[in-house]
Amino acid sequence: MKNENSRRKFITKTAIGMTATGLLVSGCSEPKEGLGGKFIHHVFFWLKEPITDDVSAKFEAALKELITIETIVDFHLGKPAATKREVIDASYTYSLITTFKNKDDQDIYQTHPKHLKFIEDCNALWERVLVYDSETI
Amino acid sequence: MKNENSRRKFITKTAIGMTATGLLVSGCSEPKEGLGGKFIHHVFFWLKEPITDDVSAKFEAALKELITIETIVDFHLGKPAATKREVIDASYTYSLITTFKNKDDQDIYQTHPKHLKFIEDCNALWERVLVYDSETI
Repeated sequence: MKNENSRRKFITKTAIGMTATGLLVSGCSEPKEGLGGKFIHHVFFWLKEPITDDVSAKFEAALKELITIETIVDFHLGKPAATKREVIDASYTYSLITTFKNKDDQDIYQTHPKHLKFIEDCNALWERVLVYDSETI
Repeated sequence: MKNENSRRKFITKTAIGMTATGLLVSGCSEPKEGLGGKFIHHVFFWLKEPITDDVSAKFEAALKELITIETIVDFHLGKPAATKREVIDASYTYSLITTFKNKDDQDIYQTHPKHLKFIEDCNALWERVLVYDSETI
């Protein structure tokens, strides 16, 4: 009966151990881990006026295709938020953040056929593009 | 003995079930879900020259304390990457991205004591701050 008890204790402890691991891993639902990648590529687009609904729809569809490139870990597609302070630049039309594991993966993205097609299809729509690339310190 | 067997089976099944849940949730390590929040707050800092090791250490320590504010979902703390193209601005010293569930959570961050302390302790170190806030389209 001692052996049987020990076995049950082992099973129970294993169960708790595995569950604890699961819970720890599940903590990544709020990751606080650097946006999924060490390489951040943030692009701002200023589209040419007038920015009609058709222009917006075409540009957003192109962006949504662009962000399917495989080496992207995570992304954020946005427009200026409703915040106003002296230090805030809210003059851009669209913001696109893509994150990558490293610079090599971002290099693949730069020359990817989908990226080249995005530039070819959309470069006539913008008057300015500004990029900030940063790597984890 | 039948009851005892059933109990052991239940424990084992529960363990597997809970572990499976953990593994499923752990899939979020590659979220592709918008960087954890709909509100993106991207700040660039240009520190005053000379940027000594002491200045860098002080500023980085302050940033690491800043990003512990509770309403931050995820963050990225970076320096300019080694990329060079005409559209890239790599002139800044530090980049800080923080993501929030929504604008309200970012508003809490703005007036949080830790944020106010960060500004008080570090504003003499920078010559320029530029902010881009964006919300998911």
